[in-house]
Amino acid sequence: MFITFEGIDGSGKSTQARLLAEALTAEGHDVVLTREPGGSPGAEEIRRLVLEGDPDRWSAETEILLFTAARRDHLERTIAPALAAGKIVICDRFADSTRMYQGLSRGDLRGLVDQLHGLMIGREPDLTFLIDLPPEVGLARAKGRQGKEERFEDFGLDLQVRMRAGFLALAREFAPRFRIFDGAAPKEEVSAAILATARTALGARA
Amino acid sequence: MFITFEGIDGSGKSTQARLLAEALTAEGHDVVLTREPGGSPGAEEIRRLVLEGDPDRWSAETEILLFTAARRDHLERTIAPALAAGKIVICDRFADSTRMYQGLSRGDLRGLVDQLHGLMIGREPDLTFLIDLPPEVGLARAKGRQGKEERFEDFGLDLQVRMRAGFLALAREFAPRFRIFDGAAPKEEVSAAILATARTALGARA
Ligand SMILES: Nc1ncnc2c1ncn2[C@@H]1O[C@H](COP(=O)(O)OP(=O)(O)O)[C@@H](O)[C@H]1O
Ligand SMILES: Nc1ncnc2c1ncn2[C@@H]1O[C@H](COP(=O)(O)OP(=O)(O)O)[C@@H](O)[C@H]1O
Ligand SMILES: [Mg+2]
Ligand SMILES: [Mg+2]
Repeated sequence: MFITFEGIDGSGKSTQARLLAEALTAEGHDVVLTREPGGSPGAEEIRRLVLEGDPDRWSAETEILLFTAARRDHLERTIAPALAAGKIVICDRFADSTRMYQGLSRGDLRGLVDQLHGLMIGREPDLTFLIDLPPEVGLARAKGRQGKEERFEDFGLDLQVRMRAGFLALAREFAPRFRIFDGAAPKEEVSAAILATARTALGARA
Repeated sequence: MFITFEGIDGSGKSTQARLLAEALTAEGHDVVLTREPGGSPGAEEIRRLVLEGDPDRWSAETEILLFTAARRDHLERTIAPALAAGKIVICDRFADSTRMYQGLSRGDLRGLVDQLHGLMIGREPDLTFLIDLPPEVGLARAKGRQGKEERFEDFGLDLQVRMRAGFLALAREFAPRFRIFDGAAPKEEVSAAILATARTALGARA
């Protein structure tokens, strides 16, 4: 089972991905927790190339190619082997984030993202947990963190508003694999709801 | 006018690209000499990522994506602006090298290379100078150079033989833009023949 977390910055993806991995591991499942961009040694190197440096260091098209290269490596070396071994893979962001980020800054690129995905990746998650959150709350939370990987952080409230709407639209487009959670609720409530959903999905498979 | 040099390792591409750039510059042309992978700051960083390290550091598919990302950056930031300004661009290797190297190690990938090229690059050179050479001669010459960028050097005679045949097949496939030169001739002879061909092509355009 391949599970991904999506949502705007500060919505709690990393927190909830970790909590879900811990809970499922405690229940005896074999779990691999990973993240994008990155998730394999090569993809982590590409991650540094994409996330560090000037905002205009790469064009949107080159950026999509680099993200797709990182995703291909991550899929080949981390995700696919783990799934083949019967493990549960939990991934903090995946292709939906590329659909959103690139498609939002340059609306005409969504088609290119999808064509590249079809050509080089092909795989969709079995289940995607979208953590929905008012952008002001997400921005306030995200401000706590500062680092070198700033290229996508500085987008301001307006873009976060469009991003939130975009994720909700994506959830309608790929409805069968999406589950939406209220990220403004306390962490423990969110994680309990997510764990229940994951258990149901795992039960349906077993 | 966009001119590329192709051929096996040690055939004299870098030597002849430089000599042609010098000759055309001396004749008053505005010339940009560049190379692949690389040719722009971002593409040079991707070049390091692709060429250094273990032979199996990247799968063939990831490698194609990284080469295409580097080429997109190179095209956007170096080649296209120079061509738009009316300059002559001379490039040491271009998309034909990806067609050859990836297509040779994994024959089934030629289609993928072409689809990615169509989607993300699109541009073919106006003129491609293929320097043809017996592989034994090329290998002997190339041995003089040693560096960190070894991932594609260690292929041995057998692959060089197939590579030479592959380049000749490519020249038939894209016949209108290809010109073939005998790289076993003395440098000065090769460069004189190349310069004459370039002059003819430039004259036909002027
Ligand atoms: N439900 C929640 N309520 C309050 N704070 C939260 C909640 N979930 C996460 N946080 C905090 O918000 C910040 C961002 O969470 P994080 O998991 O890093 O989000 P993301 O990975 O989506 O950017 C962290 O400081 C985290 O502890
Ligand atoms: N026509 C030639 N005859 C003899 N040596 C040559 C000739 N052309 C190039 N060389 C030498 O062969 C080596 C490889 O040439 P180079 O231009 O680097 O090839 P490539 O870029 O195709 O790998 C260099 O040492 C160069 O000086
Ligand atoms: Mg996070
Ligand atoms: Mg060379």
